[in-house]
Amino acid sequence: MSGYFITFEGGEGCGKSTQLALLKEYLEQKRQNVIATKEPGGTEIGLELRHMLVTGDKDKMDPIAEALLYYADRRIHMTKKIWPALEEGKWVLSDRFADSTVAYQYYGYNKKVEKNVLDNLYQVTVGNFKPDLTFIFDLDVETGLARSYAKAAGMVEKETRHESRGTEFHQLLRQGFLEIAKQEPERCVVLNADKSIESLHQDVVKIISERFGIA
Amino acid sequence: MSGYFITFEGGEGCGKSTQLALLKEYLEQKRQNVIATKEPGGTEIGLELRHMLVTGDKDKMDPIAEALLYYADRRIHMTKKIWPALEEGKWVLSDRFADSTVAYQYYGYNKKVEKNVLDNLYQVTVGNFKPDLTFIFDLDVETGLARSYAKAAGMVEKETRHESRGTEFHQLLRQGFLEIAKQEPERCVVLNADKSIESLHQDVVKIISERFGIA
Repeated sequence: MSGYFITFEGGEGCGKSTQLALLKEYLEQKRQNVIATKEPGGTEIGLELRHMLVTGDKDKMDPIAEALLYYADRRIHMTKKIWPALEEGKWVLSDRFADSTVAYQYYGYNKKVEKNVLDNLYQVTVGNFKPDLTFIFDLDVETGLARSYAKAAGMVEKETRHESRGTEFHQLLRQGFLEIAKQEPERCVVLNADKSIESLHQDVVKIISERFGIA
Repeated sequence: MSGYFITFEGGEGCGKSTQLALLKEYLEQKRQNVIATKEPGGTEIGLELRHMLVTGDKDKMDPIAEALLYYADRRIHMTKKIWPALEEGKWVLSDRFADSTVAYQYYGYNKKVEKNVLDNLYQVTVGNFKPDLTFIFDLDVETGLARSYAKAAGMVEKETRHESRGTEFHQLLRQGFLEIAKQEPERCVVLNADKSIESLHQDVVKIISERFGIA
């Protein structure tokens, strides 16, 4: 495939969505063809799945049901949007991807779901395909949750199902993302997200330039 | 678990839903505690998933995405409804279960999805648990589809996404159900569904009586 697939990962309120939008703008200024997308909810059906997954009571389904729904969303996203865009040579920037499923459903739930279950789902859904680059935005849990709840205050339907799991869950989540980065240092770059939007954007641009030669 | 789990399987228009309702009535007359449920859509979230799966364009998602959604529905169904009811000693009668996923997503699509993918999903979602008895209602494809479209004519939102796949798909589906029954002759009973509702009900009651001693 001729395009590049870049994923933006991290805990709640880490600033990844803002950074994704800024990178898209930057690449477009460099005359690149870019699409911005997200998980869950990168497609029409996906938006319905997103609604199920991120709103409502935290116990309305268990981690295995969640993992299956995230992977259903991902399969539709891959086949209907990501792969076709990459075939056309576009950059695809995704706000969350499979690392989030491992971080939330495996690490966050303190390994109640076996890792090989998630690895099997990845294999079935995505096969051997991987992102070309993954940014992991690392931020302390209190700061992130405070930001995320402040954002949700402006939403008609609050996307705070995962936020409501409490601090311990989010600490495990943060450590999970760092663990994932350690296991795949070539693909994953951890960025300290506790800085200004502009300064973090410069970190992102620097890495994109080094990796893909966009000057 | 102290209850009995009975599943009703077969192609479109085979009469299984009618037979399920009649068996429920029969068992209640025998003072049994019974719940009737269905897949997809046995729970509140499941009803939203059902809507995605059985309405709209047949190509809106691929067989792998479908299988993941059916299994997400099944996991929620198992954990929130089926297992709790069986623990309470109830009979659980389900209009479709995992055999439908194998029949539709494996046999119907002419084995485009690998069987071990579905076996893995079963293991993740349901583990070693199985129905105590499965009725497979066998009917020729033309009769079944004609019945099913006649029923859909009265629906506001037509549940005909699978019906629209054409005759060849439904022939493979029918053969698939018969193949499943052949592989598990202890669990599965094939019934000829090309007879009157009352006569088919007597066949069902006879088997229930023999297996579970309800006189």
